[in-house]
Amino acid sequence: MEKINRCYYLDKEHNLTLLEKPIPAPAADEAVIRIMANGICGSDVHFYKDGRLGNFLVQEPYIPGHECSGMVYSVGKAVTGIQVGDRVTIEPGIPCGRCGTCKSGRYNLCPHVVFLSEPGINGTFCDYVAVRADMLYPLPEGMSFELGALVEPTAVAVHGMSMAGNLRGKTAAIFGAGPIGLITMLAFKAAGGGRAVCIDINETRLNRAKSLGADDIVVNRDADLRNCCDIAFETAGSPLTTALLFTAVRPGGYAVQIGWPAGNVVNMNIADFMEKEITYSGLNRYANAYPAAIAWLADGRIPGGELITNRFPFIQTPEAFAFTAENPDRVVKTMVLEE
Amino acid sequence: MEKINRCYYLDKEHNLTLLEKPIPAPAADEAVIRIMANGICGSDVHFYKDGRLGNFLVQEPYIPGHECSGMVYSVGKAVTGIQVGDRVTIEPGIPCGRCGTCKSGRYNLCPHVVFLSEPGINGTFCDYVAVRADMLYPLPEGMSFELGALVEPTAVAVHGMSMAGNLRGKTAAIFGAGPIGLITMLAFKAAGGGRAVCIDINETRLNRAKSLGADDIVVNRDADLRNCCDIAFETAGSPLTTALLFTAVRPGGYAVQIGWPAGNVVNMNIADFMEKEITYSGLNRYANAYPAAIAWLADGRIPGGELITNRFPFIQTPEAFAFTAENPDRVVKTMVLEE
Amino acid sequence: MEKINRCYYLDKEHNLTLLEKPIPAPAADEAVIRIMANGICGSDVHFYKDGRLGNFLVQEPYIPGHECSGMVYSVGKAVTGIQVGDRVTIEPGIPCGRCGTCKSGRYNLCPHVVFLSEPGINGTFCDYVAVRADMLYPLPEGMSFELGALVEPTAVAVHGMSMAGNLRGKTAAIFGAGPIGLITMLAFKAAGGGRAVCIDINETRLNRAKSLGADDIVVNRDADLRNCCDIAFETAGSPLTTALLFTAVRPGGYAVQIGWPAGNVVNMNIADFMEKEITYSGLNRYANAYPAAIAWLADGRIPGGELITNRFPFIQTPEAFAFTAENPDRVVKTMVLEE
Amino acid sequence: MEKINRCYYLDKEHNLTLLEKPIPAPAADEAVIRIMANGICGSDVHFYKDGRLGNFLVQEPYIPGHECSGMVYSVGKAVTGIQVGDRVTIEPGIPCGRCGTCKSGRYNLCPHVVFLSEPGINGTFCDYVAVRADMLYPLPEGMSFELGALVEPTAVAVHGMSMAGNLRGKTAAIFGAGPIGLITMLAFKAAGGGRAVCIDINETRLNRAKSLGADDIVVNRDADLRNCCDIAFETAGSPLTTALLFTAVRPGGYAVQIGWPAGNVVNMNIADFMEKEITYSGLNRYANAYPAAIAWLADGRIPGGELITNRFPFIQTPEAFAFTAENPDRVVKTMVLEE
Repeated sequence: MEKINRCYYLDKEHNLTLLEKPIPAPAADEAVIRIMANGICGSDVHFYKDGRLGNFLVQEPYIPGHECSGMVYSVGKAVTGIQVGDRVTIEPGIPCGRCGTCKSGRYNLCPHVVFLSEPGINGTFCDYVAVRADMLYPLPEGMSFELGALVEPTAVAVHGMSMAGNLRGKTAAIFGAGPIGLITMLAFKAAGGGRAVCIDINETRLNRAKSLGADDIVVNRDADLRNCCDIAFETAGSPLTTALLFTAVRPGGYAVQIGWPAGNVVNMNIADFMEKEITYSGLNRYANAYPAAIAWLADGRIPGGELITNRFPFIQTPEAFAFTAENPDRVVKTMVLEE
Repeated sequence: MEKINRCYYLDKEHNLTLLEKPIPAPAADEAVIRIMANGICGSDVHFYKDGRLGNFLVQEPYIPGHECSGMVYSVGKAVTGIQVGDRVTIEPGIPCGRCGTCKSGRYNLCPHVVFLSEPGINGTFCDYVAVRADMLYPLPEGMSFELGALVEPTAVAVHGMSMAGNLRGKTAAIFGAGPIGLITMLAFKAAGGGRAVCIDINETRLNRAKSLGADDIVVNRDADLRNCCDIAFETAGSPLTTALLFTAVRPGGYAVQIGWPAGNVVNMNIADFMEKEITYSGLNRYANAYPAAIAWLADGRIPGGELITNRFPFIQTPEAFAFTAENPDRVVKTMVLEE
Repeated sequence: MEKINRCYYLDKEHNLTLLEKPIPAPAADEAVIRIMANGICGSDVHFYKDGRLGNFLVQEPYIPGHECSGMVYSVGKAVTGIQVGDRVTIEPGIPCGRCGTCKSGRYNLCPHVVFLSEPGINGTFCDYVAVRADMLYPLPEGMSFELGALVEPTAVAVHGMSMAGNLRGKTAAIFGAGPIGLITMLAFKAAGGGRAVCIDINETRLNRAKSLGADDIVVNRDADLRNCCDIAFETAGSPLTTALLFTAVRPGGYAVQIGWPAGNVVNMNIADFMEKEITYSGLNRYANAYPAAIAWLADGRIPGGELITNRFPFIQTPEAFAFTAENPDRVVKTMVLEE
Repeated sequence: MEKINRCYYLDKEHNLTLLEKPIPAPAADEAVIRIMANGICGSDVHFYKDGRLGNFLVQEPYIPGHECSGMVYSVGKAVTGIQVGDRVTIEPGIPCGRCGTCKSGRYNLCPHVVFLSEPGINGTFCDYVAVRADMLYPLPEGMSFELGALVEPTAVAVHGMSMAGNLRGKTAAIFGAGPIGLITMLAFKAAGGGRAVCIDINETRLNRAKSLGADDIVVNRDADLRNCCDIAFETAGSPLTTALLFTAVRPGGYAVQIGWPAGNVVNMNIADFMEKEITYSGLNRYANAYPAAIAWLADGRIPGGELITNRFPFIQTPEAFAFTAENPDRVVKTMVLEE
């Protein structure tokens, strides 16, 4: 292992620069993690390509990355339950634990949350990172570091399931067959869902969905989707597919918005929404979702290995970002591995 | 009591015509009710004024009315639990009881539901009506027939409360201070809600809301509503107020659409919806809501008498409709009483 | 296929007698099913061996059996959505659809429910049975009749999952590794559960649980079970294991009573129950559970074939009952197949 | 106001001794409260009379009291949102905010919770107490300090409502008409409940329940309680009334255990529990319940003033304890007021 802390900083000119920093010392309630695997998130790519995402702008250079796993390198003096050498994954949104929102169990909405790799806050494309120890989850025996780095995006889909009512044996339509769409389809099955229909405009992505277990695939432009499902998950982040949600859902059903539609305003068919008494929920990351994400990846209900389409060594992080940005259809998940 | 069955028929030329029909005989599972009180619903007024509402058109003459109460006049041979002379209110949407939607407890969404006074199906502006006996609810001792006729619109608000999560002690914004808005505000309090803020563009309506117990009133055009509430109820049926729901609700909150926005398409601020992880629900009448509506009207938690602004005898039903249609701001609820 | 209706009647002297009866004609809302497979339920065995179960006594001869599948032989004139030749499974508890309990979605608790094979009401160990058509569920293409006959006991476990809160990624302890215990363990996994620990006093049964996917097995007499799980399912119907539920569950957890404890009174450790704020639920069959049971059996998440330990032809129904009654440890599920 | 900190210490010989201590300085995240009102809780009385409650023993002298309100006297340097002079009530169970239980929203079950006035931890029968500032709730304008001191016991009842399913318009039986029973009855009404029946063996207590709004009162020894309610709340802490819960509840109903039964083991009728599919929940204080408790006391839905039967000045705290201990039937709530 490296005894210095190599860190990749992203700047607003789209450069990733390797800098050497000291290995951090943990505060009393922190652990320092030696990072072993980092997935590249769609949001990382946005900041890399565009220098922005929604209202967030890259201004000063910062370390991207928040889908990661590693080994505990050191612990603060008040830390219990975590030991040096433990293999762990990090939940990267750190809440205050004391406001009313945290106390109600929805800590992802804490107004004081600190999210690793949000511009201005350093993330995990580095050798060592200090994190509050209660945000670490041990990896089960036999679970690889790269599966550990898939826990974070899987937690998004797990959280989506908690907004879908009783989904046991129900039929779902998943709009978008990108990384989050595929994980959502798999999470729906893992959570007890019945038939899963994937909808996209790209047949390569649809075929991948089919091979991963989708019961049916539909090319969006052709389909009559009316009342095709009990639950619709939007993962494409498109106003066009968002506008189809209330059409697709049956009376009494659920629509869950996982993708963030560009442009911020969507036209909704309120007549379908009212007549069918639909419950529609927006999703902002996850809360209390890591245990299920870990369980489902560990035992193969979510076959994480099949989602990793590309692997790069840590030292080729810039190449990994470039390849991911340039090949949106070929890449499901790019994994950057420490050595 | 009348021994003939006088019925008011509404035609597409906006006429209400009194016809004499035979008193119906109950089928085995039905009871015949001697109607004693009828409220005029906003939907009745729409059909009266415009000959249509949404996709529903007045084509053949039919009997309007579905907010009613009365006395049991006769019962079918298989009816148990209801006796001649019982004072009752009618739940007017009659579900099949056998489809998957009914079995799941959301019988208001039954695809086979028969709704009294939907054009083509006769309602209750008549002396006698035959109804499946399981749709009758006894009025508690001491509850008047006119309060019994308020149970139906109150059930709409009760149902809205079931879509608002844990509302105990929470703050609500109610958009629209018409009849349904006022009942929604009162139902929110009756269900354990905390602070209730009513929002409208009409100060007469707002002052009425204040006198009925609203903690605060806001003239829509002036207000900064951002994150003003835990739960927002839209009752105005306006795309403009609908578009404000996600602005008004705090992170983790609920938006409930009770009014049906004209035009069927609304522009929603999806960024607020996502970031605050809002749960948004449409409402189509009610299910399992009559017991609470009856309880809250019976003991005055919903002061029904203060909502009845006008009373007419049955024989002046046409005048009652005309007055209600012409005085939208002065009328909260018009009650038509049999003698 | 037989053109007469051969029926096995069970009497209080423990005899199963074959009688020939006419093929029933369907009422307007019924279908007649040619039965193709019947599982033997633990309750059938109780009536066969003991002539009673709880408060139910065998008095007059009746046809046992309610875990079945078959083909639609004829349909009543008002039936839609089901056709002659359809392959179906039967939900055997027929509710009224009109009482408040039915309307609330908990139709299994309907006071008017008619349950096939409850003594006095004929069940399905026969060639042909007439059933209300809304209680039929089509089998997916490729799903065998014997899997179709496993839907009913699987539905019990599905229903148990709906009483366990959010079970995604959680740890469960399943007390009892008999047929319902094994299906409960498999259903817990199918519904998204994490680690499943099976507890029994019989090592043969425990080894079977292990080979079906239990993460751990515990011989009851040895174990320290305190706070071992988030959710405890009791399936053994024993006051001794029931008394351990509150010990086993962690703070904030759930205990679900699926087995019916002999003797009707149990001693509960109320201190654990209070301090840990446990939610404890009893289970009476199932409601709205067939779609998930079918989905999970159809795609192998519940490997039904591995649960069928013995098969008999219909004409050997008495031998099937005798074998099942005499071999409680070797038998998981006995299947009786028509030819 | 006092400029020293007078504190009453309770020892195991049942003495309350006044000692003068320094006014505490707040830690960075704390505020110091000048206590203005203290209610005497049943648990305080137990420790006073018996020196123990359940597994908790009085060993070293400590300050009792946790039902209180006061004014903010000083704040730590990291405190925001609370200012010197604010009128507040204290939530006395201080959770860690970082464990999985806290993150799930059930912080009352936090294994690290520190509860003021649990023997070994000082409570609020003193002039000044330092508390973590996030546990303070401002009192609405016009709400008295003594009502502020009633928030804590009211929160217990609010929390019980969250375990009762949809209680709107339902019928409740409340076993026990002591302080918690009366507040539970009032909270049930405030939360939207319908008919409330109070059951006790003491007619004085029952008459008080009736005058506070119970719809019916039942002397326990006479009553046939079978299937009398949708929801049963046990508040007497008696194994005898606990054993009646499953008898009293209707199919599909809820039983909530608020009182802690002496002896720790109860005999439950499991046949009723199973057949009626009852949901039974234990309660350990409260979480997220203060806002509703404050709202309901502030607007009179819970008429707190009618629950305070006795008032003593702070300097007569020993007399207040003695009177409360000696008059269990006459006292509902004893309030000790600072001057």
